[in-house]
Amino acid sequence: MNFLEERIKKDGIVKEGNVLKVDSFLNHQMDIELFEQIGEEFKRRFADKNINKILTIEASGIGIACITARYFNVPVVFAKKSKSINLEGEMYVAEVESFTHKCKNQVIVSKKFLNPEDHVLIIDDFLANGCALQGLISIVNEAGASVEGIGIVIEKGFQTGGQTIRNLGYRLESLAIIDAMDAADGNIVFRRQEK
Amino acid sequence: MNFLEERIKKDGIVKEGNVLKVDSFLNHQMDIELFEQIGEEFKRRFADKNINKILTIEASGIGIACITARYFNVPVVFAKKSKSINLEGEMYVAEVESFTHKCKNQVIVSKKFLNPEDHVLIIDDFLANGCALQGLISIVNEAGASVEGIGIVIEKGFQTGGQTIRNLGYRLESLAIIDAMDAADGNIVFRRQEK
Repeated sequence: MNFLEERIKKDGIVKEGNVLKVDSFLNHQMDIELFEQIGEEFKRRFADKNINKILTIEASGIGIACITARYFNVPVVFAKKSKSINLEGEMYVAEVESFTHKCKNQVIVSKKFLNPEDHVLIIDDFLANGCALQGLISIVNEAGASVEGIGIVIEKGFQTGGQTIRNLGYRLESLAIIDAMDAADGNIVFRRQEK
Repeated sequence: MNFLEERIKKDGIVKEGNVLKVDSFLNHQMDIELFEQIGEEFKRRFADKNINKILTIEASGIGIACITARYFNVPVVFAKKSKSINLEGEMYVAEVESFTHKCKNQVIVSKKFLNPEDHVLIIDDFLANGCALQGLISIVNEAGASVEGIGIVIEKGFQTGGQTIRNLGYRLESLAIIDAMDAADGNIVFRRQEK
């Protein structure tokens, strides 16, 4: 197991309905030392890529993206989920449906911050059905920028999101892929990955 | 002018209705090198405080809080603005009204992540009328934890939020305080602060 899988085993809690609670270190309380390990690992996995911008989506992707950005020396853009009166001007908009929140959201990025010269690394904390990620990819493509890679902290491998994205030819790296989990005994099965 | 005031002068855009757009470096696209200067400055200003946790609120506070946390070696907790099905269990809830979004939100923190032993630094990007901040303070107090300080990146000094919080005796440090701004000529007047 890598450092993240060990942490998930230790502090993650499996709940009914294929819910994995990692709110003590990832998406409510955030362990910044762990985030530094995550950022370093993303840098290692995408070392061959020439990346000049990180794109993520509010809210829980932002912290990981910001710490990761230190290892790439690039700015972060976070997509917003609802229209804000401060977000005027021309915008890229994609419609996404969230598994967790069971509602549709518009994913919005100002056109000022994505352009055809951008080589983008997309970062997010979770990948399940992949709707949010599809929205982000759609926006990068609409901007004429290139998706150099996608870095996910935890992928639910028993849902379709990751496979779809890989089938489409994107370079997707998930630091932990969960193939199965059991709320009854708390057991979590990780997919074996090459080092 | 300090580093932040210089950046606001350079890249901030004043809009009608006392709106300051800093979305090119602070709250949509995020300049991580600037965030590191911000984190370092918060550490300098709160060097006398014994802080073991940073509390912020989604979404635009998260990046600043995470980078700042590196200088304090503490975890970050971010308050959520709407009920999520993943956020079960007992929660602290405060009602706040957002100036920007013109709507009421519930600010929510799981009781697991704030307790009477916590010495909290509250971090946020903007302070205007202070409703979000009041919600965060209310939650820290409800938890029996102590607010050691409040670090704000940009305070709109012509609105009441900052003065109210200072009147209440809280140690509030805003890295830039704007006393006036003019959409017609783009001029921004910063409050003079002791170094």
